[in-house]
Order: sequence, then C-alpha cells, then structure tokens
Amino acid sequence: MDAEALRRYAALLVDVGVNLQPGQILFVSAQPGAAPIVRAVAERAYARGAKFVDAWYFDPLVKRARLEQAGDETLEFVPPWYIDRLAALGEQRCARMTLAPIIPPGALDGIPPERAGRDRLPALPNTFDVINARTTNWNVAAWPAPEWACVVHPQLDVGDAVAKLWEELSFVLRLDEPDPAEAWRVRLGELHDAGRRIDERLFDALRFEGPGTDLTIGLLPTSRFAGETPGMQTVDGVEFAPNLPTEEIAATPDPERVDGVVTATKPLDISGTVIRGLRVRFEGGRAVAIDADDNAEVLRARASVDDGASRLGEVALVDRSGRIGRTGTTFFNTLLDENAASHVALGNGYAVGVGEEDVPRINTSEIHIDFMIGGDEVAVTGLTRDGAAVPVLRGGDWQL
Amino acid sequence: MDAEALRRYAALLVDVGVNLQPGQILFVSAQPGAAPIVRAVAERAYARGAKFVDAWYFDPLVKRARLEQAGDETLEFVPPWYIDRLAALGEQRCARMTLAPIIPPGALDGIPPERAGRDRLPALPNTFDVINARTTNWNVAAWPAPEWACVVHPQLDVGDAVAKLWEELSFVLRLDEPDPAEAWRVRLGELHDAGRRIDERLFDALRFEGPGTDLTIGLLPTSRFAGETPGMQTVDGVEFAPNLPTEEIAATPDPERVDGVVTATKPLDISGTVIRGLRVRFEGGRAVAIDADDNAEVLRARASVDDGASRLGEVALVDRSGRIGRTGTTFFNTLLDENAASHVALGNGYAVGVGEEDVPRINTSEIHIDFMIGGDEVAVTGLTRDGAAVPVLRGGDWQL
Repeated sequence: MDAEALRRYAALLVDVGVNLQPGQILFVSAQPGAAPIVRAVAERAYARGAKFVDAWYFDPLVKRARLEQAGDETLEFVPPWYIDRLAALGEQRCARMTLAPIIPPGALDGIPPERAGRDRLPALPNTFDVINARTTNWNVAAWPAPEWACVVHPQLDVGDAVAKLWEELSFVLRLDEPDPAEAWRVRLGELHDAGRRIDERLFDALRFEGPGTDLTIGLLPTSRFAGETPGMQTVDGVEFAPNLPTEEIAATPDPERVDGVVTATKPLDISGTVIRGLRVRFEGGRAVAIDADDNAEVLRARASVDDGASRLGEVALVDRSGRIGRTGTTFFNTLLDENAASHVALGNGYAVGVGEEDVPRINTSEIHIDFMIGGDEVAVTGLTRDGAAVPVLRGGDWQL
Repeated sequence: MDAEALRRYAALLVDVGVNLQPGQILFVSAQPGAAPIVRAVAERAYARGAKFVDAWYFDPLVKRARLEQAGDETLEFVPPWYIDRLAALGEQRCARMTLAPIIPPGALDGIPPERAGRDRLPALPNTFDVINARTTNWNVAAWPAPEWACVVHPQLDVGDAVAKLWEELSFVLRLDEPDPAEAWRVRLGELHDAGRRIDERLFDALRFEGPGTDLTIGLLPTSRFAGETPGMQTVDGVEFAPNLPTEEIAATPDPERVDGVVTATKPLDISGTVIRGLRVRFEGGRAVAIDADDNAEVLRARASVDDGASRLGEVALVDRSGRIGRTGTTFFNTLLDENAASHVALGNGYAVGVGEEDVPRINTSEIHIDFMIGGDEVAVTGLTRDGAAVPVLRGGDWQL
C-alpha cells in the first residue's frame, strides 16, 4: 500500500481507535513485519502530542523457536517485566494499540497443541485487569501480514494476496469514505442505538437456534449491549473504539446459566492454530465437551487454564448489514470474523458489559477466546423473565 | 546470507559471545530488520537450554518520528519500564545481547543535533550500573543492516553492499575458520597476553603522539589491560566476550589526569549521526573543546549530559595484527572501527579495568562514547612513575 493509504489508516487508529490525548504514552504491539503501520502510527501520535510511543514488536518466529525447543517446564514462564509494564501502562493512563495478527494463522503449524496451549504470549495474565480497570484507551486493528494474506487467499501469490486482503481491509475499515473518522462515528452511533433497543427489553436470556446449534445463554439483571456512549470510555472519560473494524454489540452474560450445544459457523484461529468444525456443549454454564474437525486439543488446553476458562465472558450480536459479512471472506482472524457473525467468548468478561452491581458476578479468567456461532441461518430470540420469546435476529436482520 | 551462515554466526554469539548458561533468560536488542539473526540466536539459545528469549526490537524510524515531532520537553523521557526491565535482567542474572547498529548511521540525518542529543534511547541510564555489577553476561555484535551497508559501501547498490559488508564481517568475525569458537578462544588468549605484558610495567600514563595529536592519559595505580581470564567474567564466574569482533585491550584511566589535544583517526557514528574530523582538547582530565568538520554539536551535547560525560572512562590499545584494520574499511560503527585503532571513550569507566581499590576513582557517567585516536602514524609510549618513556606501539606494532 502507498504512503498516503498508510497515513489515512494510521490517522483513523490514533484519532478514533485509541483517541490519543496530548501528553499520553502510546504502547503499540505488533509483529516485526508490521513496522510500516507502526511507524505511520508513531508519526500520527507524535503529531497529536504523544509523550512517547513505545513500539513492542513481538516476533512469532522467536515464539516458534521456543515452542520447538524449550523445556516443557518453562513454557508457561512470562517475564515479570512484561506484566509490570502492562500494569504501569494502566497506572500511568497510557493508550494501547495492537496490530493483529501478531501470531499469523498457521505460524505454529506442526507444534504439538499441548505445548502451543501452554505459551500464551503475547497475551498476559493481567490484560483483563487493565481492561476492566478502564485506565487505558485501547484499540485492536488489523494489519495485512503476508503470512496471513496467504491463508485468507491461498489461490493467489503472496503479493496479490496482500493486495487483495488490503483492499478488503480498506473496505471494512471504511477507508474508502471521504472522512473515515466521521464514517466510524456514524457507525458506532448506529451500533449503540441497536444495543439500546435490545437493552430496553431487559431479556433474561438469549436463545440461538440453527444447524447444529440450540444454545440458551442467561443474562445478568444488568447485562447490557450499549454503554453510556458509543464505543467505550476510560475512567477519565476518554472515548475510544476498542476494535476497528467493529460491527458487533456485546454484553457480558451470566457465567452460571449457559446450556445446550453450539456449532461454530466460522473457523477459529488461536494464536496461529486454526480450529475448524468446532462444536461445544454447555451444562450449567460450563463447556463440558469441546470437539472439532482439527486441533480441538488447543482450545481444550486453553479452556482448562483456570476455572473461568470454560465459561462464557461475552455474547455479541452482529446483523448482516455490516461490511465484514458482505465481503463473504473468512479472514481466519477473530477481530474480523467475529464482526461477520454473532459470537460468544470463553473466558474473561468485560466489566463494561454489565451494571456496576453485577460486576462481581461476571466470569473471570486469564483467557478470552471468541468464536462465531451466528449467521443468516441462526435465529436469535430474546427470552423475557415472564416467559415470552421475542425475535431479535432472523435471517441476519434485526427484529427490534 | 544463507541459513547455514546465520546458524554459524548465531552459534558463535550464543556460545562464545554471551556464553549462555542453561536456565538463563537471554535478552536480545536489535532493530526490526535484524530479525533473521535474532531468530537464529533464539533457536541456538533454546537449543542450549535458555529459559526464555526476550527479543526487543527497537525501531530507529519510530525514534526518528519522535525526534521530528515530539515536544522538546519530552525528548529526555525514558519509559520507567525500560529501566526496571534492565535492572531485573541484572537481578535475575540474565544474558544480554545487542545486534548493532540499532540506529543505522545516517538514520537521523537532518534532525537538529541539539534534539538528537537529548534522546539517547535505546541507551539507558542504568546500563553501566548493570555492566559494572557484573551480574549479566553480555555481548555486542554486528548485523549488516542494508542502511548501514550503503553507508560503508556507497558505490554499490544495496544488495551488493550488504553482501560485501557481510563478507567483511564474516572475515573479521573469523566465521571463515573451521571452528570459529576455537579461533576466538585463541585470539582472546593472545589479547589477554598482550594486556599482561603492558600491565607488568605499571605505567603511570600513556602518551599518544601523531598528526594533530599529543595527548597524555594518566592511569590509576591499578589500571589494567588484562583481567584474570581472557574476555570478561560475571560475579558468578561465567566467562563471556563482550564484543565480537574484538581486537582491543582496554583499561580504565584516571579521569583527573588527561591533558593535550587529540585528533580522531576515523569518523565516529553517534546513534545515527556521523562526526568527521573530530578534534578534542583536554585539560585536567576534562574535554574543554570539542570541534569537528561536521556535527560537533551532537558530541558536545552528549559530553554535557552529566559531570563525567566530558572525562575519559576508557583507553584501549589496538595493534595492526587484527583483522579489522586489515580490511582497510571504515565501518562507521564503533564496534568495528574501535577495533581497527587505539581509542578512548568519553564517559563511564568499566570497573573491570581497575583493581577493586580504585573503583571509586573511575569516571561515572550516563554515556560511554568511544572515538578512534590510533593508527600506524600514532606512537604510543608508556610513562613510568620514575620518568622513563617506554615504547608501546610504533607503526602499529607492539614494542613489548
């Protein structure tokens, strides 16, 4: 992509994604190959008055070398300075940005899944503490790494695959709009309105029904799909857009009341391992059976890292009006694929997805792994406390 | 270079350079373009039983963005987590490796020198504390970054320049030897012997005389050019080679007794700015005048960061038998150029260069900047306490 396209993208990420404030430190995580966008982001951030831009390039091939050769007993080691740094970023009210994927899909092919599942870096055990403290304005966005582009478009050579993926990303990121920042303000407003229409119904649960799926997800009394403002807000009142692109509205469910079976409607990439044909059975909130056509062990390993890892921390609804679903592409990347279809996440819940009094009831875990369970063939119905069933999504269209 | 050459180089750096011990953490600093050697080093380190390899890619173009746009008052800011991490690396007895140059020569061309001089990253204020505590086994080695290769060989196109520079590096790194590790053990032994022959004379001072140079550098009573063993040792007895290649023997001088004038015999690169025609006048140990054909301001700014920055922390002798001088190439990189010629360094002294009782007398500073003052035309003479003058180097050959 050309320098002007990079500049437009960087401006969107800095201005709307993290909404960087003058005097803030911006921490950027990316793989080394993403240096062009990291540099463009740094230029924009300094132009907006950043105090410092700390670029953390995490190398997937150094991680692979570890998984190939390091002793089993060392694989869960996390340098304490990684954890301390993230804590400091929170304490000092910094902005944080991640260019995904850091570990491209397929990067860990051939690594025994039980080993791959034990090294969760660059994820850190205190990530959700910092997110839920709402001390940082943060954003996760996409970068068309060549290894990723070749997985998305395997029929193309690498240059064409990157060009095609970048074309798709530009479309879903609304970089083709005359003013992408304004286009996102409008879109975030639409999503906020959709969330409020659902929240008004005070549903007790949501039921998903479709091929291989009949799952009921209990909601907490204050579970909510819309916050006070579009996007999210820090404790200091800085509004930011945690994901770009985003087409979802998400709430934090009751981790004790999830029952039924669900079949994923898209492949799922977990830190470089692709899981296809995922099927999960829930009883009393817990995922009691995890099966898949490939690599189920990787998700099973993640879902057993702690007590909350087998319970839900998120339920999100996506209608078919969004741009990601319209591409028809499977991106093998959660940031994008989760915005093409309604989804749930195993693991930690976001505090912003409930009212304050229910925060103690939300799920806690070191993991947060989204997988896609929605689509035009999956009906979503809201169940009220008095037993009524209210259509929410039919054929991918809002019914409210 | 091919994968086999990378593996041989990585093995030398891990086995001889830092001499990684099983169970150690290895911290590697490099620019993102050096990823191929960082990954090869990670593979070797994990094969040798590393607990973890932490690759820190510091991006010179993110630094440039800062220097171009960040507020003056922010340029000296260093994220506290950088300092804390380095302290932790020492406390936890880790290995540290740097692939130089991180900031290629010329990378900061056009930046006002007074701004460039205020941002010393990736150098950290506690680097010398950790070095002098001898808690880490560390190594600085070279990587033929394209931007650097084009400065060394401006007449070649980039691919040829990198190939030529790599050929030269392979020669000076003795990678052409059947067993490079053994070749370095032999060479480190030769240098150790040369240092011992000088130390036996208990010189009071060294005098450098040549074109534009007449400089007398006082030594402390225990200043020494040879340690107990070849290379260096940590407090735990791990022997390591702090620089590869290395052809120097170095001692820590008396920071109070340096007088005369000195003309640099090679250009000097300071974090991306090249200084040519450097001339320095010393009085009572202090550099009282710093002039140059270009960019003297950058060194002046560095030499005024603290009290010790204008005094000497190192004097090193290099004879003409080494391989670096034989290439005839100016590398615009201190790691290499300082090993082609005798040199001194402004700033912090190394504790290993004196006996324990003189450690309180050595120079302390946040900086350590070497510049080359020797060559075949510069005579080096040892002055004894009783007034005798003993030839040390004549025409580049040892006289002892």
